[in-house]
Amino acid sequence: MIVIMKPHATMAEKAAIIARAEEHNCKIHLSDGSERTIIGVIGNVRPIDRDQVERMPGVERVVPILKPFKVASREFKPNNTIIPVGNYDIGGGELVIMAGPCAVESRSQILETAQAVKEAGAHMLRGGAFKPRSSPYSFQGLGEQGLKYLAEARELTGMPIITEVMEPALVPMICEYADILQIGARNMQNFALLHAVGKSHHPVMLKRGMSSLVEEWLMSAEYILSHGNTKVMMCERGIRTIETSTRFTFDVNAIPVLKQWTHLPVIADPSHGTGKWEFVAAIARAAVAAGADGLIIEVHPRPDEAMSDGVQSLKPERFARLVQEIKGIAAAIGMTVAETAVSA
Amino acid sequence: MIVIMKPHATMAEKAAIIARAEEHNCKIHLSDGSERTIIGVIGNVRPIDRDQVERMPGVERVVPILKPFKVASREFKPNNTIIPVGNYDIGGGELVIMAGPCAVESRSQILETAQAVKEAGAHMLRGGAFKPRSSPYSFQGLGEQGLKYLAEARELTGMPIITEVMEPALVPMICEYADILQIGARNMQNFALLHAVGKSHHPVMLKRGMSSLVEEWLMSAEYILSHGNTKVMMCERGIRTIETSTRFTFDVNAIPVLKQWTHLPVIADPSHGTGKWEFVAAIARAAVAAGADGLIIEVHPRPDEAMSDGVQSLKPERFARLVQEIKGIAAAIGMTVAETAVSA
Amino acid sequence: MIVIMKPHATMAEKAAIIARAEEHNCKIHLSDGSERTIIGVIGNVRPIDRDQVERMPGVERVVPILKPFKVASREFKPNNTIIPVGNYDIGGGELVIMAGPCAVESRSQILETAQAVKEAGAHMLRGGAFKPRSSPYSFQGLGEQGLKYLAEARELTGMPIITEVMEPALVPMICEYADILQIGARNMQNFALLHAVGKSHHPVMLKRGMSSLVEEWLMSAEYILSHGNTKVMMCERGIRTIETSTRFTFDVNAIPVLKQWTHLPVIADPSHGTGKWEFVAAIARAAVAAGADGLIIEVHPRPDEAMSDGVQSLKPERFARLVQEIKGIAAAIGMTVAETAVSA
Amino acid sequence: MIVIMKPHATMAEKAAIIARAEEHNCKIHLSDGSERTIIGVIGNVRPIDRDQVERMPGVERVVPILKPFKVASREFKPNNTIIPVGNYDIGGGELVIMAGPCAVESRSQILETAQAVKEAGAHMLRGGAFKPRSSPYSFQGLGEQGLKYLAEARELTGMPIITEVMEPALVPMICEYADILQIGARNMQNFALLHAVGKSHHPVMLKRGMSSLVEEWLMSAEYILSHGNTKVMMCERGIRTIETSTRFTFDVNAIPVLKQWTHLPVIADPSHGTGKWEFVAAIARAAVAAGADGLIIEVHPRPDEAMSDGVQSLKPERFARLVQEIKGIAAAIGMTVAETAVSA
Repeated sequence: MIVIMKPHATMAEKAAIIARAEEHNCKIHLSDGSERTIIGVIGNVRPIDRDQVERMPGVERVVPILKPFKVASREFKPNNTIIPVGNYDIGGGELVIMAGPCAVESRSQILETAQAVKEAGAHMLRGGAFKPRSSPYSFQGLGEQGLKYLAEARELTGMPIITEVMEPALVPMICEYADILQIGARNMQNFALLHAVGKSHHPVMLKRGMSSLVEEWLMSAEYILSHGNTKVMMCERGIRTIETSTRFTFDVNAIPVLKQWTHLPVIADPSHGTGKWEFVAAIARAAVAAGADGLIIEVHPRPDEAMSDGVQSLKPERFARLVQEIKGIAAAIGMTVAETAVSA
Repeated sequence: MIVIMKPHATMAEKAAIIARAEEHNCKIHLSDGSERTIIGVIGNVRPIDRDQVERMPGVERVVPILKPFKVASREFKPNNTIIPVGNYDIGGGELVIMAGPCAVESRSQILETAQAVKEAGAHMLRGGAFKPRSSPYSFQGLGEQGLKYLAEARELTGMPIITEVMEPALVPMICEYADILQIGARNMQNFALLHAVGKSHHPVMLKRGMSSLVEEWLMSAEYILSHGNTKVMMCERGIRTIETSTRFTFDVNAIPVLKQWTHLPVIADPSHGTGKWEFVAAIARAAVAAGADGLIIEVHPRPDEAMSDGVQSLKPERFARLVQEIKGIAAAIGMTVAETAVSA
Repeated sequence: MIVIMKPHATMAEKAAIIARAEEHNCKIHLSDGSERTIIGVIGNVRPIDRDQVERMPGVERVVPILKPFKVASREFKPNNTIIPVGNYDIGGGELVIMAGPCAVESRSQILETAQAVKEAGAHMLRGGAFKPRSSPYSFQGLGEQGLKYLAEARELTGMPIITEVMEPALVPMICEYADILQIGARNMQNFALLHAVGKSHHPVMLKRGMSSLVEEWLMSAEYILSHGNTKVMMCERGIRTIETSTRFTFDVNAIPVLKQWTHLPVIADPSHGTGKWEFVAAIARAAVAAGADGLIIEVHPRPDEAMSDGVQSLKPERFARLVQEIKGIAAAIGMTVAETAVSA
Repeated sequence: MIVIMKPHATMAEKAAIIARAEEHNCKIHLSDGSERTIIGVIGNVRPIDRDQVERMPGVERVVPILKPFKVASREFKPNNTIIPVGNYDIGGGELVIMAGPCAVESRSQILETAQAVKEAGAHMLRGGAFKPRSSPYSFQGLGEQGLKYLAEARELTGMPIITEVMEPALVPMICEYADILQIGARNMQNFALLHAVGKSHHPVMLKRGMSSLVEEWLMSAEYILSHGNTKVMMCERGIRTIETSTRFTFDVNAIPVLKQWTHLPVIADPSHGTGKWEFVAAIARAAVAAGADGLIIEVHPRPDEAMSDGVQSLKPERFARLVQEIKGIAAAIGMTVAETAVSA
């Protein structure tokens, strides 16, 4: 931690900083420049509250040296984390594709879609049973019945399923049905929920908040990891920016940034990252070219009847073509798309 | 709802839109321009899914005419909502000031601060017992013990208390202690929590998500209102923008926008809206000049020892001066600051 | 300048940093922490290229200690800069109000508006003769003829005039007519233009770029100041954010930030800062309450016939009421609105 | 143009809208809904000022139907524009790679770099002679001498050159040396400059403003096109967002959006789009996978001595590897990288 003092900070003000550091058994390096005094605080500085120091008299600002996340960092664990789900190893070098409708709408809809995406080359099935909707008047999902349909689809196709969990009290129930728990963008800093999925020790896909820094996103992963649940994957799904031609701006930069900062697998969601089906294929290809470990894509057999997100859903035929394009891109960067498992 | 067709949309594509509208008993106005056909859909269009229509063949885009919130709108209820809390009427024309520490840290800290802010002119006491922190390693609040200290401070000073609730399961307990439930920025779209506080029928202060549109924020209010809980106040606390000289950008524009769009009271939080104590007074004055109904301000007797948010907390003396400045500004726009109630 | 080395930086890599610093006659403070080595570079570091150092082997990042602007800073010049224009001293403690139409449209329009805003209490007249328009098909201004009408309005009312300059070649001509040169938001980093107005030694109002940091904005002021032209005022006009209910988000925080960082006067433009006339008065009041030295407001006698920006222009009657409101706010913070000068 | 009236708009207010439309020989469609009246204005609405109508009494808002750009649109010209430069056809289906240093620093530096990037597989040489720098104290480029060195590099290698033009007065001189004129991000709405390069009829690469909408960017292209200069290519170089781990956020979504909206070629700049050399290769690959027609990449033989942008420059060896990766990605999407021409 580096403390930059104001131009005319007094000796007493500097001494107070030093005393505060020494209380925490940290060492000090003092640099008196012509315009500023800089105090370097060395040692285990994590217990020192940065905000408190910044509020001490004579302090201009405090510059942290270390990133605030620890267990999520590459320094803590240099090798990639690999998360086994069904017959697949997410983060293990083979690209994994998750696909399915935004919401489970009926038994026939999810079974039809599951078979269609499997035939097209998907490895896992997505589908929401509990839906976060910005309007209280919109369809809120089928609830546990939706989970049952998902389980039936898994039985039929052999595909592991991923579905969203929205509140701590529902974690145990959703763990019974789902292979991967999804934390949605709006809940990225729902800390009670992060604690609950951390305790579950179930695989978790953590979506990025729509206006969250990569650093904050990794801090939310750290919440889950801090309970000993190491099965966390990060899902880039676009951030809100000034641009309005797409619903969100897919932050493709975040893919190599995450690969440098963390050992956790990175999944890309081009459906939410664009919000328009016409652009989904281009961004899916871009994400793979940038180094993503997996994709999650919304597919619906009849998007103009979808109960949510129809506007960003691909039809199965377009999705099937995309899987072929993805295989080409993956090959070009020395990666392969996982083989689809044979049905149970 | 206005449906703008693509340049070469076919007759069949137009007919499908019309059929969809008629299924919902809506009427149609068709305008064939030289470059586009426009289809106006008239009647009760709320049940028609905009996304579905946007995904129909031949459609370029759909323009909604009505705002998506209803009960929160001025059209639904033209007169200002007034929320009685203790002896005060929030939204009733008298400015209400809430103040106190970010977090309840100890019995003595909260009692000392409560008395200090009361003497300075505050009407209500804020203080967090359950704290949302971006790091799992930071102080997470005293929990129910913190609520007990708050209740003791209320008894001592007569000031109503406001405190944050972070998960649905804790709503009943927090209702026992708090006069106002606070929903934090990170939970603005935690829909399970919105449902829970809606059912409580307790006064709620809903903070704006750090990257939420005013429209989305009012939709979250609508969640609470839809349960018949009409005691909702909106709290502007800054949004995340490109600027980095302050932690957030206080969106002062949102104050007159809310006053035009909704009947709900508007509270301003200049502490989070700037993130730096030096700028809090200027922004508190600005918020009142722009028409806010109340303020919520972080005050700590020793900010450099605060367990959270010290950097944006005022000391009691500075806060006392600010209350006087606020009285001047309020008078200039024909408003008054509420009289402080006599202690119980 | 503080250089933070990567975890396993070699001795040779550290030595290279030290050598680079010593080439520039800077001293070094080395801090070997358990996780990182930190190298403090002390002395006149401005000539050392931060980007170069950041690209040296073993370097994680470089943290600058000093702000990049110098002549614009409060450290360089602690006292407020006061800019005399006509009979007014901008930045001298009396609030100055500039008003007028977005564009000069005709002789009668500008003369009528000039008299109306003067009667309402404005001190200076604004009006664009050369207009930056996002569309090549929109009205681009009357050019020099517009300047002549402005000069006539000044003669009639005694009000100094402010008008925009868009290209270096036109600076001499516009200096002949205008009392203040305006640099528009889109040209905040048009460096050729900044050099040209710097050399002119004419008063300049520098609008903030719509997505510029306060620091970058002050660097643009530094361009003008570096030519010895000290008559620069900063104009906050809103930044682009995610919010869409207003055209821009007026960054009210920037007012106290500027007051802390620079000695230059601060003008607020609530017309562009909101983009909607209904919100202009609230934001004008807020800006004054936050500490602005002046206002610039768009007024048009018939906004629904305005050739540009009608949607954010006040009618003279509403503007006159606003001037009275502003006087009340100014008084509440111990400031006065300048007396309007008697016509020539 | 669709005019949405306020809930209680009067007959007279509606009549005024209709009269305004008829003045411009437009037809009207009136839809009286239960909550709002909607007035569709049909015909050649471009001459009707949207802002004026929005300011008419009783109007809630105006929704434009047509995009504001015309000549730049795919509707105006469905086929891709192909821009011949040297032996290459930009936009013609073969990917073109431009590379070179941020700034021309010396004769030897540019000649060395030119040969290195040519050997690595680049087709064109970039290099700035006039540099826009945020600080007046930074290196501002070699000026015309830099152009002469570029011309010498072209003679040596046969590569066409691209360089930035910063002010209208310099357009003729730069046209003498450069094969492509670059308009920088900070000048995207420098309309005087856009007019000047429009009149030149020279190929232009128009960089996106760092906070500009795709629509505004195309309006700036329209300025150039409106002078009959059809040789415009669009360069995505990242936008400013809330994320700070990279200098800018490369808006990969903009690539398919542009491909849908316009016929102009799209170039990607991953150097500015990330601001960090470590991430350049991943984003270059992503841009090609998303459909870009070309790349522009900063390469410097000794980035830690670069006079600008060293932190985002690749060394020639890394660039050479990237060209091979790009060839693989291009092949995967059925595109080829252009053959490098034999030197003159």
